[in-house]
Amino acid sequence: MPKLNENFFKLEKNYLFINIAKKIKAFTAEHPEADIIRMGIGDVTLPIAQCVIDAMKKGADEMAVKETFKGYEDSGAGYDFLREAVSGYYKSFGVDVPAQDIRINDGAKADCGNIVDIFGSGNTVLVTDPAYPVYVDTNIMSGRNVIFADSDESNGFAAMPDESVHCDLIYLCSPNNPTGSVYTAEQLKVWIDYAKKNDAVIIYDAAYEAFITEEGIPRSIYAIEGAKECAIEMCSLSKTAGFTGMRCGYTVVPHELTVKNSKGEDVHLADLWGRRQGSKFNGVSYPVQCAAAAVFSEEGQRQTRENIHYYQRNAKLIADTLDELGIRYTGGRNSPYIWMKCPNNMGSWEFFDYLLENANVVGTPGAGFGKNGEGWFRLTAFGDKDKTAEAMERFKKLFG
Amino acid sequence: MPKLNENFFKLEKNYLFINIAKKIKAFTAEHPEADIIRMGIGDVTLPIAQCVIDAMKKGADEMAVKETFKGYEDSGAGYDFLREAVSGYYKSFGVDVPAQDIRINDGAKADCGNIVDIFGSGNTVLVTDPAYPVYVDTNIMSGRNVIFADSDESNGFAAMPDESVHCDLIYLCSPNNPTGSVYTAEQLKVWIDYAKKNDAVIIYDAAYEAFITEEGIPRSIYAIEGAKECAIEMCSLSKTAGFTGMRCGYTVVPHELTVKNSKGEDVHLADLWGRRQGSKFNGVSYPVQCAAAAVFSEEGQRQTRENIHYYQRNAKLIADTLDELGIRYTGGRNSPYIWMKCPNNMGSWEFFDYLLENANVVGTPGAGFGKNGEGWFRLTAFGDKDKTAEAMERFKKLFG
Repeated sequence: MPKLNENFFKLEKNYLFINIAKKIKAFTAEHPEADIIRMGIGDVTLPIAQCVIDAMKKGADEMAVKETFKGYEDSGAGYDFLREAVSGYYKSFGVDVPAQDIRINDGAKADCGNIVDIFGSGNTVLVTDPAYPVYVDTNIMSGRNVIFADSDESNGFAAMPDESVHCDLIYLCSPNNPTGSVYTAEQLKVWIDYAKKNDAVIIYDAAYEAFITEEGIPRSIYAIEGAKECAIEMCSLSKTAGFTGMRCGYTVVPHELTVKNSKGEDVHLADLWGRRQGSKFNGVSYPVQCAAAAVFSEEGQRQTRENIHYYQRNAKLIADTLDELGIRYTGGRNSPYIWMKCPNNMGSWEFFDYLLENANVVGTPGAGFGKNGEGWFRLTAFGDKDKTAEAMERFKKLFG
Repeated sequence: MPKLNENFFKLEKNYLFINIAKKIKAFTAEHPEADIIRMGIGDVTLPIAQCVIDAMKKGADEMAVKETFKGYEDSGAGYDFLREAVSGYYKSFGVDVPAQDIRINDGAKADCGNIVDIFGSGNTVLVTDPAYPVYVDTNIMSGRNVIFADSDESNGFAAMPDESVHCDLIYLCSPNNPTGSVYTAEQLKVWIDYAKKNDAVIIYDAAYEAFITEEGIPRSIYAIEGAKECAIEMCSLSKTAGFTGMRCGYTVVPHELTVKNSKGEDVHLADLWGRRQGSKFNGVSYPVQCAAAAVFSEEGQRQTRENIHYYQRNAKLIADTLDELGIRYTGGRNSPYIWMKCPNNMGSWEFFDYLLENANVVGTPGAGFGKNGEGWFRLTAFGDKDKTAEAMERFKKLFG
C-alpha cells in the first residue's frame, strides 16, 4: 500500500473562508432583506482592459489557422515576446531583469507552492506572521520546519529579521497580504544583508507591486543591491491587470543566484527550477500569453492603470474614514489592503460578527492569517466604489 | 544555506530532444537544400476547431464586461459546466465518472508530475519501460525507488505485471507513448487485480484515448470493474482536440479510492489531492475552460473528430507502408504513434542518422525512452498528410 505524505495531516484545516461563507449564509437566512457589502475576498471586480481582451482573441484566432497554430512551447518558460515585455516592464520602473531570467507561469500561487520542490528537507523556513497561508502550508506539506518573524503593531506589521535567529529560506511579501504594509528600500537592504549572512534564499512575493505609488518603496527586490545573489521574485498579473480568472504570472530566478550542493559545488537555482518546470509544467496557454503581453503595451498600461487607480481611490476612502474615526490601521497606501485594529478590543471573529450584524459589511478576520492577526481585521479595496462608499457611511454611523 | 533537493542530481540529463535538434542543425548546415520531414515530435499540427475558438473568444469577451467578468474560481477544480461536460464525454463511451470526481487542470503533464506530492517517500514505483520520461523523472525528483516492467517484442510492447514483484504505485499509459501499444480490457483487469493484491494505486495516463477505434480496447480504466478502488486517471485535450498550446486536461480521483494512513485510517486520495491543488493551483483560465467545454459539444466533437481521423489516416499510411516493407512495428492502430524496429539491426541512434542522411526524415530514437527502446524508433502521425505520404515514398525507395 502506498505510504501517504503524512505531512498533509499536520496542516491546519483551512476554515477561514469556509467559516466566513457559513456565517454569511446563516445571517442571510435570518435577514433576507440585508444589503450585505463584501469587503473580504482578495479578488478583483473590474473587467479586463479591452485591448488585452482583443489581444487574447487575436491569439485565439491564430490557433484556428494551420499556418499560425501554436502547439507546445519550445521551452515552457514563456514566449520570448512576453518575457521581453516583462523585462521591459521592470525597466519602466528602473529595475534591470533580463528576459532570460524570467519564466512565465499560470499565476504566482502555483510557482510559490512549487518552488519548494527544488529545496531539500531539513531546511528552516522563516515566514512573517501574519502571512498568506500558501507560504506556510506548502512548506508543511514538504515536511519543513517553519519559524515565524512577528509582524505586529510595534513594527507597523512589517517584520524585520532577528539577527540571533538562523534560517535557510525566507518568505517576504511587500506590499503585504494581509497587512498592507510595505518595506522601504532600507528595510529590504536589512533583509538582504541578513539573508547573505545566513546564506539564506529570499522568496519575494511582489504580487501587489502595481499599487505602490510612494517614492522610496521598491516595486521589486531587485531594486536593492545584492538581491540578485540571494532572492527569487514572484509576481502576477492577477492584481496588476485583473488576471485572477485569466491566470498568468512570472517568476524571476536571477542567473547570479547559486547555492552550494553537498559536494560544495555552486548550483544555479535557475537550472534546478528549469528542470522542475521542464518535468512538471508545459507552459501557459498561448492566447493568455498574448493577453499578458498586451498588458505591458502602452495602451495596456494606460487602461490597466485606470483600474488600479479605481481601487486606490477605494483604499484611500477606507483609510480616510478610519483616520476620521480614529481607528488604527496599516496599508491603504501602496496597497489594496487595509488592516484595521478591531474597535473596542474586540477579537477578530467577534468583530466579524459585530460588523456583519450591525453594518452588514463582511471583512476577513485577521486571526485567519496567523497569531499576530488576532484583534485585527482585513478590508479590501477591490470592491465597487459606490458599495465601498456605502460601507464607509455605515462605519461612520456605527463607530462615529 | 538551504539544502538543495539533491535528488535532482540523480536525474539523467534529458539529452534526447536536444541531441535530435543538434543533429538536424548540423545536417541542415551541410545540406541546406535538403527537404527534411519531421516525424519526431509528439505535437499536433492541425488548427483547433472553429467552434472551440469561438467559445474561447466568447469567454474572453465576458472578461471585458463587469457583469460577466470572472475572477478566481471558487474551488479551483474547474467550472461545473466543464466538469459536467467531461463527465458527459465519459458517458458517451459508456463509462460513469461523476463530475465531482473530476478536477480540471492545465494539461496532464502538470498533474502527472504534481500527483507525487500526496504520496510519501519510501514508496516503490513501477513504470513500464519504455515510457514517457515524466513518470520516472518526477519520482526520482521526490526520492522514490523506481522499478521497471519490461515492454518488449515478446509482449507487443505492452508490459504485464510480474506477480513476484511488489510495488506501491504503478504508472500505465494506454494507448502507449512511445510504443503505440494498447491494453485490452482483459489485460487491464490483470493489472487491476495485481494492484489490489499489492494494495497499490495505478496512475493511468489516458492522453491518447481519442485514437482508440477498436472494440474491446477500453478508452478509460474505469471501463473495468474494480478500477475506481485503485486507479487515478489523467487525460488531456492536447491530442483529443489540439490543445497542446491551449493547456487543458483533467484528472479523475474517484471518491471510492482510499488509502490507509499510518494510523490505519482510510484517507480519500481525492481529499489529499484537493488540498494539494488548493494550496498550489488556482484553476485554469476561464476562456480556456470555455474552449474546452466546446470540445465536448456535439459540433465540437464533430469538428475535433475530423482532425483525429486525419491523423489516423496518416498512422494507417505509415503502418501500411511498414507492412509492405516487412518492417515490424507496434501501434499505428488505436494510436498516433508507430513504434518500428530499426531495419538491419541498427541501433536507435544509428538508424536516426541513417534515416536523416538517406531519406531526410526525422524520427525519435527509441533508446531515449528507456533501455527496451534500443533498436526501436518512434514515428508520429501528427504531421501533414502530404509530407507523411512523401516520407513513406522515401521509405519505400530506401527499404523496398
